[in-house]
Amino acid sequence: MHEITKRILAGDVRGAARAITCIENDYPERTQILSEVFPHTGRAKLIGITGTPGAGKSSLVDCLIGYLRSLGLSIGIVAVDPTSPFTGGALLGDRVRMQSHALDKGVFIRSMGTRGSLGGLSRNTKDAVRILDAYGCDVIFVETVGVGQSELDVMHIADTTIVVLNPGGGDAVQAFKAGIMEIADMFVINKADLPGVDKLHIEVEQMLDLAKHDAAWRPPIVRTVSTQNQGMQSLWEEILRHQAYLQESGLLTDKRGEQLQAEVLEIVHQQMYQQMLASIQTGAFDEVLSDVAKRKLDPYSVAGEIVKQLAIGK
Amino acid sequence: MHEITKRILAGDVRGAARAITCIENDYPERTQILSEVFPHTGRAKLIGITGTPGAGKSSLVDCLIGYLRSLGLSIGIVAVDPTSPFTGGALLGDRVRMQSHALDKGVFIRSMGTRGSLGGLSRNTKDAVRILDAYGCDVIFVETVGVGQSELDVMHIADTTIVVLNPGGGDAVQAFKAGIMEIADMFVINKADLPGVDKLHIEVEQMLDLAKHDAAWRPPIVRTVSTQNQGMQSLWEEILRHQAYLQESGLLTDKRGEQLQAEVLEIVHQQMYQQMLASIQTGAFDEVLSDVAKRKLDPYSVAGEIVKQLAIGK
Repeated sequence: MHEITKRILAGDVRGAARAITCIENDYPERTQILSEVFPHTGRAKLIGITGTPGAGKSSLVDCLIGYLRSLGLSIGIVAVDPTSPFTGGALLGDRVRMQSHALDKGVFIRSMGTRGSLGGLSRNTKDAVRILDAYGCDVIFVETVGVGQSELDVMHIADTTIVVLNPGGGDAVQAFKAGIMEIADMFVINKADLPGVDKLHIEVEQMLDLAKHDAAWRPPIVRTVSTQNQGMQSLWEEILRHQAYLQESGLLTDKRGEQLQAEVLEIVHQQMYQQMLASIQTGAFDEVLSDVAKRKLDPYSVAGEIVKQLAIGK
Repeated sequence: MHEITKRILAGDVRGAARAITCIENDYPERTQILSEVFPHTGRAKLIGITGTPGAGKSSLVDCLIGYLRSLGLSIGIVAVDPTSPFTGGALLGDRVRMQSHALDKGVFIRSMGTRGSLGGLSRNTKDAVRILDAYGCDVIFVETVGVGQSELDVMHIADTTIVVLNPGGGDAVQAFKAGIMEIADMFVINKADLPGVDKLHIEVEQMLDLAKHDAAWRPPIVRTVSTQNQGMQSLWEEILRHQAYLQESGLLTDKRGEQLQAEVLEIVHQQMYQQMLASIQTGAFDEVLSDVAKRKLDPYSVAGEIVKQLAIGK
């Protein structure tokens, strides 16, 4: 067993942090650690939180953490910050957010960026969640900006997905357009002290009438005011009600099983991609690539030749 | 030469539409058509338009098209709508948007969804743009919701990327957080008749002071009111000024060459993924996948075994 695995299973916070660094940078020990911690995962409640930028997700999570800490639960947060392609890192990372919990040992916060991420942000985020699960977090939040496809994809790992809306942030149609409404297991109208709450509530109900949802679970709409610490108990009760529903219906087992199978393909895909890059980096294809850049060859034919030479699937 | 290629090069709109359908559904003739049209591409001006949901991108493009049509230019638009994972298609597609140009033969509009998209939305979008380029569009717009990584990735194909902001849509910091500010070659403050325009303008200027941009091109900020047809000429002039800058500096050739090389890797990646799926679908791995779903095996070890058996890269 790898030294880092031992430290994670012993509840060493620096071991967990180190493992996530291995994932982000794709160090060689990554797969061994993930394989070893796997039997110790599956215990945490995995909660996805998404919404358009500015919906107040961070402050909501911040507030909910305070409530859950008062119940004695340990918390993990994996925040997916879309990364600037130029600076190579999240603009607003761990350092400036959720400072109120910075010194609380029962709260583990990590922002994931795409820097150096060959296998994709979504894959790395899921692996980071698994580390925190093995480390012993009771509840793990995955927080994303829910507009892009890879961000939606991250949400597949969550048992319960919460979509945060706010009355001042454009209408519900825009959120629907972005594809995030239909992955919701519940909605939170945050900043529910602002005008327009009833209108937004009705709009969401109308959207729910249109959307295809599990017939046995209609996503509830919870109102919160995170700046005033309001609505946290109701929100937590709805989360527990959803978790109980998943358990009793057998959906939790099914959902997690399907997700695990899908993850096998993701990991194969990631490893194939890395092997392809390694082949390219040997320089064997430099000449044809240079001809493509000069438009002497077309990228489609050249790609076909490279695939043949890599002899994939045989 | 494929029949569809001939039709595209002859300027047959239904041929172009058919080719994009082949791309979206990944029909076998896809690669042949793309390879054949490639020598006939590279002529169109490729303009990326992005911004957060609700920023008014569609209405801006709609209005700009009207202006460009008055100059006699033919226009292509490829709109990337993040797709609902449930309905499998864009909620607001071609049918309900930009209806003012629906009957104009000089305007080709296509929405791309992720349905059936093995190779990814980004790859398909780039290939669709290439079809429209060969078909003969003078100017091609790629419109995305610019928050996700794959949506940002689409923008690499654009020569000129425009980020649309609006005074009522949250502050510029949120847009920056989402990583879209730094890919901008210019900014449009749309709905410039609303309050808060000067404040937003100053915020963007401040962001530009912070960001790393090409020293020789500081992104201009153009104000438009698309509902009143204002600012279109200024916007087009700035686009032409940027295109001239790219030409004269040699950046256009460099940028397009690099993009073509990157595309070779993307296409190889896509084809490898499809071959992997084909291998999985033979059923050879059903038993181990079933054991993963039951948590008898961990997904990381099983993925490693599958990679070995596919013998990728030799």
